[in-house]
Amino acid sequence: MSDWRYDVLGLGNAIVDVIARAEEDFLIREKLHKGSMTLIDEARALGLYDVMGSGTVISGGSAANTIVGLASFGAKAAFIGKVRADDPGHAFAHDIKAMGVHYPTAPAKDGPATARCFVLVTPDGERTMNTYLGACQNLTPDDVDEATVQASAITYLEGYLWDPPAAKQAFLKAATIAHAAGRKVALTLSDSFCVDRYRDEFLDLIRKKTVDIVFANQHELCSLYQTADFESAVVALRSEDLLGVVTCSEDGSLVVTRDETHAVAAFPIQQLVDTTGAGDLYAAGFLAGLTRSADYVTCARLGGLAAAEVIQHYGARPQANLRDLATECGMI
Amino acid sequence: MSDWRYDVLGLGNAIVDVIARAEEDFLIREKLHKGSMTLIDEARALGLYDVMGSGTVISGGSAANTIVGLASFGAKAAFIGKVRADDPGHAFAHDIKAMGVHYPTAPAKDGPATARCFVLVTPDGERTMNTYLGACQNLTPDDVDEATVQASAITYLEGYLWDPPAAKQAFLKAATIAHAAGRKVALTLSDSFCVDRYRDEFLDLIRKKTVDIVFANQHELCSLYQTADFESAVVALRSEDLLGVVTCSEDGSLVVTRDETHAVAAFPIQQLVDTTGAGDLYAAGFLAGLTRSADYVTCARLGGLAAAEVIQHYGARPQANLRDLATECGMI
Repeated sequence: MSDWRYDVLGLGNAIVDVIARAEEDFLIREKLHKGSMTLIDEARALGLYDVMGSGTVISGGSAANTIVGLASFGAKAAFIGKVRADDPGHAFAHDIKAMGVHYPTAPAKDGPATARCFVLVTPDGERTMNTYLGACQNLTPDDVDEATVQASAITYLEGYLWDPPAAKQAFLKAATIAHAAGRKVALTLSDSFCVDRYRDEFLDLIRKKTVDIVFANQHELCSLYQTADFESAVVALRSEDLLGVVTCSEDGSLVVTRDETHAVAAFPIQQLVDTTGAGDLYAAGFLAGLTRSADYVTCARLGGLAAAEVIQHYGARPQANLRDLATECGMI
Repeated sequence: MSDWRYDVLGLGNAIVDVIARAEEDFLIREKLHKGSMTLIDEARALGLYDVMGSGTVISGGSAANTIVGLASFGAKAAFIGKVRADDPGHAFAHDIKAMGVHYPTAPAKDGPATARCFVLVTPDGERTMNTYLGACQNLTPDDVDEATVQASAITYLEGYLWDPPAAKQAFLKAATIAHAAGRKVALTLSDSFCVDRYRDEFLDLIRKKTVDIVFANQHELCSLYQTADFESAVVALRSEDLLGVVTCSEDGSLVVTRDETHAVAAFPIQQLVDTTGAGDLYAAGFLAGLTRSADYVTCARLGGLAAAEVIQHYGARPQANLRDLATECGMI
């Protein structure tokens, strides 16, 4: 079966971001690990919110950001992720549906509140994330709609799904259904500390061919192979014999297969404002290219374009129409 | 008594903005009056939210934006305005307190939800506002803390307070307390349609010296004096014998007293993104100058600087530290 209804289905934590500017000394005072994502409980979430600055609230979630980016590129997209039926949950659902994304997941009627990520952006544009998973802990295999997975050319999964206990089973169920339907499965390693928490399981997903495409940044890749030497990490990735896509911030990205490695420069920016969503939107651009059967270099350039758009403003959702942007740049 | 604890106390509607980009044809389809503020009921609020695009949520409210701007300039500021004890209400209180503003108003435990303003920003940067007043309708004279008003050099009131029934009495109570304590009272006319709704009462406030300072843009001033001729509206304002401050968008602003009129150019900008809060932040800069005993021209330049900052990004709250910005520009 080669026909499908959705180009990409995303499965991930459904999160609302609360973004605030913060000085370096605030991160130190609050013992926050700059540039990474830390899981926090409800008490810490309330405490951190009390001391952080004035916030801007924008829907987020890694895979959700990627899916919204794909929709902005004009791709047919769907998303599975759990919110609670509360104010932020309604906002998350509104925002993703407003982008034309199919979002079939029923909100939890009770239990923990919709997930919040407190994103602290330092003057250098780097973001430090603190996530209260809340309702994401209620995502189960029952939320994985078989028909939607079968109808999606690519199912895109985030490594963060290893954090909420039941979500891992939902991830594996989706991957199994996708492959049974002859579809592709993509994984993003999400965060170097996330890789550190689940290294063996992630390597298993790669080596047992549970995933066909892997997205990572250089820190995540080095963490995966427990090396400080990026070059050797890339060699290790190549030996896995799948499609590997590695982002290197301002140094652009690498597309790695068993037979070839393509290095593509980053898209130029005028001003770095907030790196939140850079990796998510890169994946959106790359996958948008794949769904259009573009060559890997074009896919990587589309990824760079989308990442460049999102890091020049606050929030991890695109503010421009990415398809128009790509057309203006002559990429599609 | 010449000593005080607060430079400026603001009294206004406590509103959370939901900002979304919209095309011109969306405004036409939804019968929205571009550039103005329209009051909507809860049903219309829900209906409009359903059809509008992905939103960014940022605390707003005209006088509240001005007060936060003053705090960003380093002024001692306080605010009185009503939210409900719900998610957006907590966010509004968090955001204004995070700026160091004294905010003594108790949230309503029940009744309508915290006010929302759906701000639709067209590609030209113009904003069209649709406000559901919600909990603002529960602001009463009891919320006006006498000690706080007496302790404030200037009490700043928004014309929008004429919309929620009881707020008008709170406005008049605050003005009476302020004058009894030898303080100044300022009014912003808020919106040309608001002026149209309450023209006679606003003229009464001016002519009975209930207010000492009036902020208006050219449309509001022309509406106040029911003339299409801006020049004659300025002549009429001068004859009122108070301090009049008139903003004229990219043409800068005018400071009008009985004896003199100063025209001050607008502060240059690189890119107009969203005009939301331009007037609010202009007032913040102007009042910040007054509280520093600056001359009127310097006050107007500080107003232009703050307005220029806020229209170059989404949302009506400053993203930069305005005191640092004014220092860099050699204005203070």
